Amino acid sequence: MTHDAALAALSALLGERLSTGRADLALHGQNETYYPDTPPEAVAYPETTPEVSEIVKICAARGCPVTAYGAASSLEGQHLAIRGGISLDMGRMNRVLAVNAEDMNAVVQPGLTRTALNEELRATGLFFSVDPGADASMGGMAATRASGTTAVRYGTMRENVLALEAVMADGTIVRTGTKARKSSTGYDLTHLLVGSEGTLGIITELTVRLHGIPEAVAAATCRFDTVEDAVNCVILTIQSGLPMARIELLDEMMVKGFNRYADAGLPEKPHLFLEFHGTPAGVAEQMESFRTIAEDFGAEAFATATRPEDRTALWAMRHKAHYASAALGGGKHLWPTDVCVPISHLAEAVVEAQEAAAEMGLTCTIVGHVGDGNFHAGLSIDPTDAGEMARAKAYTDKLAQTALRLGGTVSGEHGIGIGKQAQMAGEHGQALAFMRRIKTAFDPGGILNPGKLLPDDA
Amino acid sequence: MTHDAALAALSALLGERLSTGRADLALHGQNETYYPDTPPEAVAYPETTPEVSEIVKICAARGCPVTAYGAASSLEGQHLAIRGGISLDMGRMNRVLAVNAEDMNAVVQPGLTRTALNEELRATGLFFSVDPGADASMGGMAATRASGTTAVRYGTMRENVLALEAVMADGTIVRTGTKARKSSTGYDLTHLLVGSEGTLGIITELTVRLHGIPEAVAAATCRFDTVEDAVNCVILTIQSGLPMARIELLDEMMVKGFNRYADAGLPEKPHLFLEFHGTPAGVAEQMESFRTIAEDFGAEAFATATRPEDRTALWAMRHKAHYASAALGGGKHLWPTDVCVPISHLAEAVVEAQEAAAEMGLTCTIVGHVGDGNFHAGLSIDPTDAGEMARAKAYTDKLAQTALRLGGTVSGEHGIGIGKQAQMAGEHGQALAFMRRIKTAFDPGGILNPGKLLPDDA
Repeated sequence: MTHDAALAALSALLGERLSTGRADLALHGQNETYYPDTPPEAVAYPETTPEVSEIVKICAARGCPVTAYGAASSLEGQHLAIRGGISLDMGRMNRVLAVNAEDMNAVVQPGLTRTALNEELRATGLFFSVDPGADASMGGMAATRASGTTAVRYGTMRENVLALEAVMADGTIVRTGTKARKSSTGYDLTHLLVGSEGTLGIITELTVRLHGIPEAVAAATCRFDTVEDAVNCVILTIQSGLPMARIELLDEMMVKGFNRYADAGLPEKPHLFLEFHGTPAGVAEQMESFRTIAEDFGAEAFATATRPEDRTALWAMRHKAHYASAALGGGKHLWPTDVCVPISHLAEAVVEAQEAAAEMGLTCTIVGHVGDGNFHAGLSIDPTDAGEMARAKAYTDKLAQTALRLGGTVSGEHGIGIGKQAQMAGEHGQALAFMRRIKTAFDPGGILNPGKLLPDDA
Repeated sequence: MTHDAALAALSALLGERLSTGRADLALHGQNETYYPDTPPEAVAYPETTPEVSEIVKICAARGCPVTAYGAASSLEGQHLAIRGGISLDMGRMNRVLAVNAEDMNAVVQPGLTRTALNEELRATGLFFSVDPGADASMGGMAATRASGTTAVRYGTMRENVLALEAVMADGTIVRTGTKARKSSTGYDLTHLLVGSEGTLGIITELTVRLHGIPEAVAAATCRFDTVEDAVNCVILTIQSGLPMARIELLDEMMVKGFNRYADAGLPEKPHLFLEFHGTPAGVAEQMESFRTIAEDFGAEAFATATRPEDRTALWAMRHKAHYASAALGGGKHLWPTDVCVPISHLAEAVVEAQEAAAEMGLTCTIVGHVGDGNFHAGLSIDPTDAGEMARAKAYTDKLAQTALRLGGTVSGEHGIGIGKQAQMAGEHGQALAFMRRIKTAFDPGGILNPGKLLPDDA
């Protein structure tokens, strides 16, 4: 099914800002993971919220799917127009509209990337904390409820989005939330839209929390003999109430990946990468407390980095986990998956994840935001090898089942998108029907990112 | 309209646990504020979740309203069965089902009060942080998105509810969320139910976050010449990133109330009541930093309380603000209202609130969780004085308009209930229609707490 009537009307509205160029379509059909290329029928480039509203109205009247597109860094294909229609590229709505330093918030457009926001904040002493690794767009991060390395201290997008403006499926422009830090007035539409993957509304503006840049920052690394030792050290650290700013696990395979991809020169043992934020005295105290815990678990080679350039290098390497994991398979593609479990079950989950990969003959790295109980398994795969693809799928399903058995969730931060719809019933049971009711109530024509998040039979 | 058919069926199900005794009805029709007594037609005392489901099914089939009842400490009449039907008293579902100390969460039933939970946690080194003053029930606190004195550090119910079990309007039992600290799997039904005031589902179980009891705790008080000085001190403290555990403003009228009600013996000037949590060194550092800021705003009589009994006495007094405010009017009733604004506008909002009360001839205290930008105005009123009641209503509306003008919300923590429905359109605009869509999709028969939160014309 094509949507020529909608495209004609959109072309009249947008002129050259409705693109059907082959290269543009191809670009908007790509993704970072294993989903097949899926070019949309056209790409629309809105510049204002009223324009987004007009676009959605045109599409609603003609049954044309609208799939929002940010930085294309989503990992479950959320930005792919798999049912046709238009890719709504928010890239031209990329301004910082206001920085309210005194209230520690910023108002931004959805196409702005997180690093561009932090660039703009440089002179303020404030920063935007959510750091999923990729230079994702703010709208995409909200839509997928992104988190990342600093969520253990500063929260995920759930905690850092105060208010939204969104265009709903009938073109209505709504505002949710306020600039106050809390509210008890009615249904929490902000948190309903955060994580809805563009299926309930198109985010056109965000008010996000900012945090003060800490007076002192120190990073550190250490290594352990076994992944259980590393994870048990994390568990005790969190339980002790140490306000870790980052606490990341890299298993031995991940370290091997960094050595191969980035010449990291690290012994191929499980490592923790850490960051401490606070006053100078506070950071020193935290580091000492952590070190005492870590040494009880046999940690070796505790090394600190207080110079900004050394810390930056450390986290830049960490953020290349995606490519370093892929590199392990000799330049193959990566199938990334993530789960999140209660921290008391983290060691069990990680060990099961490693063992399952070995049993299934898959090359797999484990890297994770373990302070939250969240970790990623990165499978190095060849998309043309049907057998390997089937095993990767089976592995992903198995890991999801493990997470549910341990009281966790089938995704801590990647979301559902295309890839995990089959897990929704297992995680949500009867609640899934109420999610469907919301979708039907908000988007009766099913034009917003169809085919994502909710399984068709939900 | 009465609901005799429903009551007969409920009586068959519950036996003596469906009460129509006059005293019981009268008790369930009372409230702490100015709403007229509104006895329900009957009171049901469920003991299990399946029983709640059966009750709701019976009521749904017969169009009988169901209004959940916790500790009756809500301040906007949320627990009153104003459209008749039953009061669903959750008081017998008051157990702690599990304390997962290693994951820092607890699973509790909705009728449990927050102080009973903290009693049970005594031996664990953990505590449940949300402290609205009243000994509210956990279910009620979630339903009204309660917060209180410690929200500035530990968050409100929004941040502290991980997962819920709820009975929906058709009797379906759903589970939302997991025991993992974060998730990206589908629509956030947990946050949709938190703050829904019993209009979307009946909460039958909660998984809540716990926090480690800090190694060191110190409380402090100080006073200022003007309320602007006090508030500006708060603003700078928050902007400086000091991790305040509590930072409460009491204006001169509130102090007068404490002097009269509790012989507090405090000079009748604006005060801040503070609490610092951390390591011993951290607390000392925080107190010194605060003191430096406070002295710049002319703070006097900085006094600290590190002994637990002194701290307890201080916060016990603070928690009597409701009654101390009422006492100012010579034993009259209290009309409490609250708003929340961006902290940069807090001084302006507080001064306007004081001036408006004076202009309107109302006796009013201001007390607030000012670190969040949230404050309460407590009007001492005589419900039999129609003129005073009209002025109190006008004052409340004016304060809500002030909050909206300053980018805030018409309630930071009391909610909408009966009293603030007229403000919903002003705060939410077009979004209100989407709240109504959710209500209609979840509760098409309108049996769950009808007449609350959403205005009838929304």
